[in-house]
Amino acid sequence: MTRLFKKHYHPAGTAPGTLRELTLEQAGLLGPATFYLARREAGRWGAMQEIPVTEIPEAAAEGPLCWLHVQGLPKAEELELLGERVGLHPLAQEDILNGGQRPKVERFDDALVVILGIPELDEEGDLHLYQLSLFMGASIVVSVMGETLDPFVVFRRRLKESGGRALGEPDDLLYGMLDAAVDHAFPVLDSVGERIEEMEVEILNHPDSSTLERLHGLKRELIMLRRYLWPTREVINQLLRDHDDLFTPDTRLWMRDVYDHTVQVIDLVESYRDMTASLLDVYLSSMSHRLNESMRTLTIIATVFMPLTFIVGVYGMNFENPVSPFAMPELGWYWGYPMVWGVMLAVAVGMVVWFKRKRWF
Amino acid sequence: MTRLFKKHYHPAGTAPGTLRELTLEQAGLLGPATFYLARREAGRWGAMQEIPVTEIPEAAAEGPLCWLHVQGLPKAEELELLGERVGLHPLAQEDILNGGQRPKVERFDDALVVILGIPELDEEGDLHLYQLSLFMGASIVVSVMGETLDPFVVFRRRLKESGGRALGEPDDLLYGMLDAAVDHAFPVLDSVGERIEEMEVEILNHPDSSTLERLHGLKRELIMLRRYLWPTREVINQLLRDHDDLFTPDTRLWMRDVYDHTVQVIDLVESYRDMTASLLDVYLSSMSHRLNESMRTLTIIATVFMPLTFIVGVYGMNFENPVSPFAMPELGWYWGYPMVWGVMLAVAVGMVVWFKRKRWF
Amino acid sequence: MTRLFKKHYHPAGTAPGTLRELTLEQAGLLGPATFYLARREAGRWGAMQEIPVTEIPEAAAEGPLCWLHVQGLPKAEELELLGERVGLHPLAQEDILNGGQRPKVERFDDALVVILGIPELDEEGDLHLYQLSLFMGASIVVSVMGETLDPFVVFRRRLKESGGRALGEPDDLLYGMLDAAVDHAFPVLDSVGERIEEMEVEILNHPDSSTLERLHGLKRELIMLRRYLWPTREVINQLLRDHDDLFTPDTRLWMRDVYDHTVQVIDLVESYRDMTASLLDVYLSSMSHRLNESMRTLTIIATVFMPLTFIVGVYGMNFENPVSPFAMPELGWYWGYPMVWGVMLAVAVGMVVWFKRKRWF
Amino acid sequence: MTRLFKKHYHPAGTAPGTLRELTLEQAGLLGPATFYLARREAGRWGAMQEIPVTEIPEAAAEGPLCWLHVQGLPKAEELELLGERVGLHPLAQEDILNGGQRPKVERFDDALVVILGIPELDEEGDLHLYQLSLFMGASIVVSVMGETLDPFVVFRRRLKESGGRALGEPDDLLYGMLDAAVDHAFPVLDSVGERIEEMEVEILNHPDSSTLERLHGLKRELIMLRRYLWPTREVINQLLRDHDDLFTPDTRLWMRDVYDHTVQVIDLVESYRDMTASLLDVYLSSMSHRLNESMRTLTIIATVFMPLTFIVGVYGMNFENPVSPFAMPELGWYWGYPMVWGVMLAVAVGMVVWFKRKRWF
Amino acid sequence: MTRLFKKHYHPAGTAPGTLRELTLEQAGLLGPATFYLARREAGRWGAMQEIPVTEIPEAAAEGPLCWLHVQGLPKAEELELLGERVGLHPLAQEDILNGGQRPKVERFDDALVVILGIPELDEEGDLHLYQLSLFMGASIVVSVMGETLDPFVVFRRRLKESGGRALGEPDDLLYGMLDAAVDHAFPVLDSVGERIEEMEVEILNHPDSSTLERLHGLKRELIMLRRYLWPTREVINQLLRDHDDLFTPDTRLWMRDVYDHTVQVIDLVESYRDMTASLLDVYLSSMSHRLNESMRTLTIIATVFMPLTFIVGVYGMNFENPVSPFAMPELGWYWGYPMVWGVMLAVAVGMVVWFKRKRWF
Repeated sequence: MTRLFKKHYHPAGTAPGTLRELTLEQAGLLGPATFYLARREAGRWGAMQEIPVTEIPEAAAEGPLCWLHVQGLPKAEELELLGERVGLHPLAQEDILNGGQRPKVERFDDALVVILGIPELDEEGDLHLYQLSLFMGASIVVSVMGETLDPFVVFRRRLKESGGRALGEPDDLLYGMLDAAVDHAFPVLDSVGERIEEMEVEILNHPDSSTLERLHGLKRELIMLRRYLWPTREVINQLLRDHDDLFTPDTRLWMRDVYDHTVQVIDLVESYRDMTASLLDVYLSSMSHRLNESMRTLTIIATVFMPLTFIVGVYGMNFENPVSPFAMPELGWYWGYPMVWGVMLAVAVGMVVWFKRKRWF
Repeated sequence: MTRLFKKHYHPAGTAPGTLRELTLEQAGLLGPATFYLARREAGRWGAMQEIPVTEIPEAAAEGPLCWLHVQGLPKAEELELLGERVGLHPLAQEDILNGGQRPKVERFDDALVVILGIPELDEEGDLHLYQLSLFMGASIVVSVMGETLDPFVVFRRRLKESGGRALGEPDDLLYGMLDAAVDHAFPVLDSVGERIEEMEVEILNHPDSSTLERLHGLKRELIMLRRYLWPTREVINQLLRDHDDLFTPDTRLWMRDVYDHTVQVIDLVESYRDMTASLLDVYLSSMSHRLNESMRTLTIIATVFMPLTFIVGVYGMNFENPVSPFAMPELGWYWGYPMVWGVMLAVAVGMVVWFKRKRWF
Repeated sequence: MTRLFKKHYHPAGTAPGTLRELTLEQAGLLGPATFYLARREAGRWGAMQEIPVTEIPEAAAEGPLCWLHVQGLPKAEELELLGERVGLHPLAQEDILNGGQRPKVERFDDALVVILGIPELDEEGDLHLYQLSLFMGASIVVSVMGETLDPFVVFRRRLKESGGRALGEPDDLLYGMLDAAVDHAFPVLDSVGERIEEMEVEILNHPDSSTLERLHGLKRELIMLRRYLWPTREVINQLLRDHDDLFTPDTRLWMRDVYDHTVQVIDLVESYRDMTASLLDVYLSSMSHRLNESMRTLTIIATVFMPLTFIVGVYGMNFENPVSPFAMPELGWYWGYPMVWGVMLAVAVGMVVWFKRKRWF
Repeated sequence: MTRLFKKHYHPAGTAPGTLRELTLEQAGLLGPATFYLARREAGRWGAMQEIPVTEIPEAAAEGPLCWLHVQGLPKAEELELLGERVGLHPLAQEDILNGGQRPKVERFDDALVVILGIPELDEEGDLHLYQLSLFMGASIVVSVMGETLDPFVVFRRRLKESGGRALGEPDDLLYGMLDAAVDHAFPVLDSVGERIEEMEVEILNHPDSSTLERLHGLKRELIMLRRYLWPTREVINQLLRDHDDLFTPDTRLWMRDVYDHTVQVIDLVESYRDMTASLLDVYLSSMSHRLNESMRTLTIIATVFMPLTFIVGVYGMNFENPVSPFAMPELGWYWGYPMVWGVMLAVAVGMVVWFKRKRWF
Repeated sequence: MTRLFKKHYHPAGTAPGTLRELTLEQAGLLGPATFYLARREAGRWGAMQEIPVTEIPEAAAEGPLCWLHVQGLPKAEELELLGERVGLHPLAQEDILNGGQRPKVERFDDALVVILGIPELDEEGDLHLYQLSLFMGASIVVSVMGETLDPFVVFRRRLKESGGRALGEPDDLLYGMLDAAVDHAFPVLDSVGERIEEMEVEILNHPDSSTLERLHGLKRELIMLRRYLWPTREVINQLLRDHDDLFTPDTRLWMRDVYDHTVQVIDLVESYRDMTASLLDVYLSSMSHRLNESMRTLTIIATVFMPLTFIVGVYGMNFENPVSPFAMPELGWYWGYPMVWGVMLAVAVGMVVWFKRKRWF
């Protein structure tokens, strides 16, 4: 099962900005961070190359535009070095290391730090949120992806081909990454949508007791998505509203498109929640209905045999005719036995017809 | 079953504004787009004529007012040509091609792009939302209806007759189309309302197990309508609030009327949701009540026979009178047998009367 | 059953402001409209007199104040004439004719059109909403009540007596009518409140299966009232906020009183909704509890007889003592038969006592 | 049972400001109003003395500060006299007489009218809301308490001792009364809180069928409190926001304290609502669980005896050994009878063990 | 059980600012307050030392920065002395003494009073909220922790080491304490999260009847946390929005970090509430499902034996062959007895197969 909520925190009272030291185990699990750098020179993007941590470029207002991508969670000292070189505030460093942050945007003078989550389904269909931290400085954009997911497969290809749009300014790059991050939600939602439709068919036709568990799993994922999407929408809204001096009019236009995507995704999630709630109603009601219908059929069978058993019991009584002339003279009749069967058949058929008429089965 | 949620999306990271290339199959399903043009000359609207794609007029600030209607989804290159001629931004082109967009309004300088959905019931009563894209330029209005529905049957007649209002400016045309689009919701809601009332009668009188499925279907449609109506209201509100410089005071007045219609429709949808929820309660409760009532009646029958079967069992015991004088002397009495029947009748009647008094059936 | 939602609409795309032509049948149902006029002369209101439609006064900025009341739905041509004479915008004419409008206020220069609903219980206790359209011009107030209800019985008396307040300006008249319209909600709510209290007593003491239907009926009415009250509140709020230049300070004060009444009514409706929801919970739970209690009592009876029937069955077996000395020697005992009855009594009493102790009945 | 909703209203259309004439009966129930006056002279508050209605002081901008308290509902003519003397607007007079008003604040020039409700539990624990009307003029504060409750017991003592704060200005007095009114909610909430906790213990340990009724009663009270508290909060907020020119900075500070109390009380009410809802879930579930558990135990007993009864039935069949050698040779065995008992015991024990293992009881 | 809601209040009408006199018992329970003082001299923080109440420093605009921490609830006279020395408003004194306050911030000129709650789990896992009152004056920060919890263990260490940040201004100190207070919520939420996950496993695998009680306990804690967290968020928001003149730009930055933490915590609590609601649905449904499944199995067993018992009853009837040739000739057949068993086996197997096919067990 996915661990839905994961939070690393310091003991209350720790100085903020203190970088959490990862235990060896955690560091081991995550693997060492690798640093990749791409430089834009003469209007073209160079290839993305792995660099040692010591070669992280100093951010300069005038230099060529760089994109530094960190794959894997860097060690505290690596992050501090990175912070020094590009001007990343200690608070932002803390947010990157801690992981599991709420999407947010923070501005330090002319630098922006944007923290997002990338929703991704693993092979078993469980939902994970991977934190993506973005930093936009004067001539550098840094992206830190603490876990093994590579969110920029398509984006890097686009950069390489330099097709479509120029991507010559930091805000272009930032926009491109935001767009890539938000668009990761679509396949997830598509899968959720498909599972809802499968469940709809299943629940209306042949619900079983494992359905509920899967419905609950869906709800879990929708709760998780929702918790990530609302602040994401807020982040993009803040970028558009409060920090629009950092974006060219053109990028603002594209940014509004990202905003629209987020709102669309949220709409979908809310509709899915409504659908899931409605499906739960249908499921519970039809399960209880099926169960009760079967109980009724069983009870009908039992009820039909009650008077019959009573009748045969009557003729098992030890009253004897000579003593009491009223005592079951049928026992001595030629047609007595078939008559009793006739009566029993009539009773049984009568009851069945009556129940049928009342539409009890 | 209607596919409730349909979303075409690019892989995350694709350059925005990239026009999705339709697979042959999709293109085949949708059929080729046809272009129709109507021109207003000398204060009158000419007839609407099919034109080849190459004759799409260049938008000029001074030219006569044109209405270009595209029926069916255009190919990427057709759309690009259209974009060039009339000044349609690549982002808007993407929105038109992708379909399934959330209703929205976007402004590019003095041009407006409005994306709406047309709700329509098909022959089986399933709800579909067809995307209608509207573009208003200086002297041209373009409408793109990607699917087979023709939303402007009545509107075209009005244009032809030129009755009522002049429709001499782009904003008049845009308003007329918005009005036509929003009014498509009324027959849908009327049908929903009728189905709710039918269901109400059915549920209060003779609910059956298929009712739930249909109730769920209604809910689905209301969720879908709601998801489309709220942003539609927002779109019209934005037109009135943010882009009122593009409308004459007169059109603004008519526009407010469209806004009122939208709000009225939303009110209805919300009331319908409340009604459906209340009906579900009534349905579930009355189903479970009927089922339980029948179970109780069955149980009463079984329960009445229990003591009778016991009594006849007593007289089937092999105790014999000579050995034990207490052992069922009734067996030897003249009136013994009728007396036993009397006792059994008394027990049965007594129980039935008691259950009746307790109002158990 | 009340038809809860009624909507007349044009085919999508019809020119707005087109007056709907009523079918003969509809016109017949509603009956012809009658026009009544009252004039204020020399500081006094004259009597209200029926006038032919051709004598509708021309609105003049300077003339004496008139009140024109139209009872019954006017024909399209009558309404057009009225519109011409007093300056009623075509859109407002359409709203009057169509009926079933959402409460709203619209301003055309210095004229106001206010559309409200009058809630009214008919003789069977069903709720109806009758549309009241009010028009306030420079020297005339027009009220159109399309159906047979007369909302101004008390108001006319007040006008005649000219007691209390002067009613010498159009805004005074408009205020008086709004006040009369809103106050129609109180007796309706009072009746709802009484029915809720009756139901509360009924549900806590002797719920039956028809209760649910009536509870659902109450909910329906509350949904309907709510749908009418929220926009009414908004209408009065808009009058106070956006159009206060049309009202004297004094009238604004009285208007705020009407606003307070509306809010109070909404509060009540919301509380009633909460109450109804809580009552539904109580009802469902106590119904299911009663039913289950009775099932348990029945099951207890059946269960007590199970071991007894088994015991008498034992002594009905054909084992014979001489063959097997263990085979029911009781059959040959002097006290055997009473002993068996003793055992059975003990078993039965033991079970009853045990069930009683477990508080199962 | 408390009558939850009480509303006196005029017929729709009555002139506003018309004072409702109480029927004799109502007047009798409420008893005549008594007028009490306290005057502040030389920096000290004089004793509170009953005065005849004719001695109500004229409000003068310059006079010494007075507090006029009216206990019991005054007659229409008394209220009119009061209105004339102190400058109470007819609308406010109407609100005082009608009772059951929504908490509100109204300003007439420099005079304020505040209408509040005092929640109070009667001896049977039923909640009542008593309307308290406050009027603050230039040199007089009037309080009208239409019913028998005396809300100012502690406040009068404070006035007499003149301890703590000076209470030398009308706004001080008004504040003191508001504070006293709002603080009446605390003991009510405390009692509600205690009852919730008692119910929690009861529901978790020994729920019975009357619990539901009491839970519903709690909900009723919370609905009622909520309906009174939200507008109260709004009233105090309006005083702070819109009428702060009438208060000294010092009083504003104290007023914010009253506001905080109101918000705190609302928080509590909302939490109590959540708690009650959660308790209802627990109650319903545990009631149905207990009932079903007992049904299962009963059914288990019945089910265990079914095969036993069948077995003894087998040996009651009239097959005879000589005819058919297969026919129950056990009947002729020495150990036959004990063996049958052994089989029956084995069956019974086997079933019980199986049911036990399945944890069915 | 935790007492969820605790409120000390004065009788309605008491002068505000009156300090509640604790009963001996309460004072005894809480123990006497101890006063600790730390002084910052020459850029370093001195050690924290216990001081007698009389040595509380006078607040002076120019003096060295002090931190006065009061552990345990001070007596009324101690608090008054403290108030005099450092300039704590009587209203704030009242709030400190009363306890159980809603989180709030109040400003008196340049002094700020912030009231917060510290959530803490006790050893039995019950949640408690301890009130922490903070006062920030020109050169002093006072913290009052009325109960035995010590919230500043880690913070004091940080102060001692003076590591990380300078903490040289009152706003730094205040920020540090707020941060420490808010961070106390994380371990609580972590524990809640773990319990939710444990419950999820338990409910999906082996729910029992105590689960509901624990689920209700979780809900209780979430209601409590929510009631504390929303106003806490508001407090920090107000500090940032309304009182930012009291904070350096740097501290504002850190403060926003605290705000983000609060929002994150609220998000979690809301998600947990959704999860708990979903779990309740799953629990109720699976409990009722299991119970009903077992009932069905029992009923199946009983139902299978009904016809068998009937059949053996038939052969127990006293019809005799010579009298009626139709009367059970099987009794005289050689294979009669085995045949009857064959029939019974066939009936039983037939029923079981039929039920199996219907998937009834």
